Amino acid sequence: MEKGTLYGVSIGPGDPELITVKAMTTISNCKYIATPHTGTGESLALSIVSKAQDLSQKEILLLEFPMTKDKEILAKSHKEAAQFIIDVLDKGEDVAMLNLGDITIYSTFAYVMDILLEKGYDVDLIPGVTSFCASASLLKIGLTTMNEPLHIIPASGIDIKDALKMPGSKVLMKIGRSMPKLIEAVKELNLEDNVYAVENCGLENEKVYKGLDEFDENMGYFTIVVVK
Amino acid sequence: MEKGTLYGVSIGPGDPELITVKAMTTISNCKYIATPHTGTGESLALSIVSKAQDLSQKEILLLEFPMTKDKEILAKSHKEAAQFIIDVLDKGEDVAMLNLGDITIYSTFAYVMDILLEKGYDVDLIPGVTSFCASASLLKIGLTTMNEPLHIIPASGIDIKDALKMPGSKVLMKIGRSMPKLIEAVKELNLEDNVYAVENCGLENEKVYKGLDEFDENMGYFTIVVVK
Repeated sequence: MEKGTLYGVSIGPGDPELITVKAMTTISNCKYIATPHTGTGESLALSIVSKAQDLSQKEILLLEFPMTKDKEILAKSHKEAAQFIIDVLDKGEDVAMLNLGDITIYSTFAYVMDILLEKGYDVDLIPGVTSFCASASLLKIGLTTMNEPLHIIPASGIDIKDALKMPGSKVLMKIGRSMPKLIEAVKELNLEDNVYAVENCGLENEKVYKGLDEFDENMGYFTIVVVK
Repeated sequence: MEKGTLYGVSIGPGDPELITVKAMTTISNCKYIATPHTGTGESLALSIVSKAQDLSQKEILLLEFPMTKDKEILAKSHKEAAQFIIDVLDKGEDVAMLNLGDITIYSTFAYVMDILLEKGYDVDLIPGVTSFCASASLLKIGLTTMNEPLHIIPASGIDIKDALKMPGSKVLMKIGRSMPKLIEAVKELNLEDNVYAVENCGLENEKVYKGLDEFDENMGYFTIVVVK
């Protein structure tokens, strides 16, 4: 029997209208929808897509990816997710795996994809709107200036001050507990008027911050900071 | 009379199916469509959108942005484009200005927007799929690795070898005549197996290159190179 295809489907930053036509069609055509879930079994990706199309007839595959930096635990979770998907593909069914933002940027999908490609399965990727592009649109600012570079930087485990010194614009993601350090670096480099942030971009509780005066040390996990 | 709104509409990398639902709706709702054109009066953005919806009843505003680095000429063209749009907004009509890729990344729109915002006009931005995300999807590779940064770099006028030495992944855009230098830098840094390219992403003549062996010094203007 012919094996199914795994579609890696980017669903964008949160606003259901920012899903592409191709992603909508692909989800619609797949009976099986795979999605990461939190400990409680809820899936943010699934709740976003369910506002854009009826998922009531779909088979949902909830994939568990623990929030850890332990490489062995992560590798095990990727292998298990891949096998869970393979079991469906082997029945000749296609699977759409949902991914917030774009599927090629800080996604778990890439690890699962590599396992499937190695085993010879068909994988197709559908790109999407990144959270940093959506944030800049909300802020009504260009992310780049003339021919200057743009740096996308996960804030954890780096020297933030050094990062902010690079030429061009910076987008800081995965800020978590690094916000106090980031605020300190912005002050030291006199960038108070050049920082912007969006919290929970595309979700109901999204909030925009322009300039350091508006910043809050307690901004949440889904905060994106732009430094121009 | 109430003034119209300027919508900055990202239309993605070229595949009409990679336009978002929101962009489709916004274009559909606007009678006036503004788009950059080449010297011959053709617009790539317009030809992409026309594959996704009927534009025959639209009023098309062709905006001219000369291909130059002369700041005075550029500023003049931005001002003229802004005035062209303002004339329509003042009649109470909305305008959708089309933009390839995402509107906040290396777009002419940002300059036009700043003029309109300063004059107190309503501007709304609709983010889209970037050409580098679409390229990575085509290549079936993740753009990032774990918590490493991602650098988006216009290749003209920089030291390519220095750029390739930065930690994390690199996307090189606007390569133009820099391809021979890029190939030389890749060889010097032994990155032959870590380079990928997509030419004319999303267009009919798109082509994928994996590894330096497949590279061609004559790749065109719309080539994106990924170095992992």
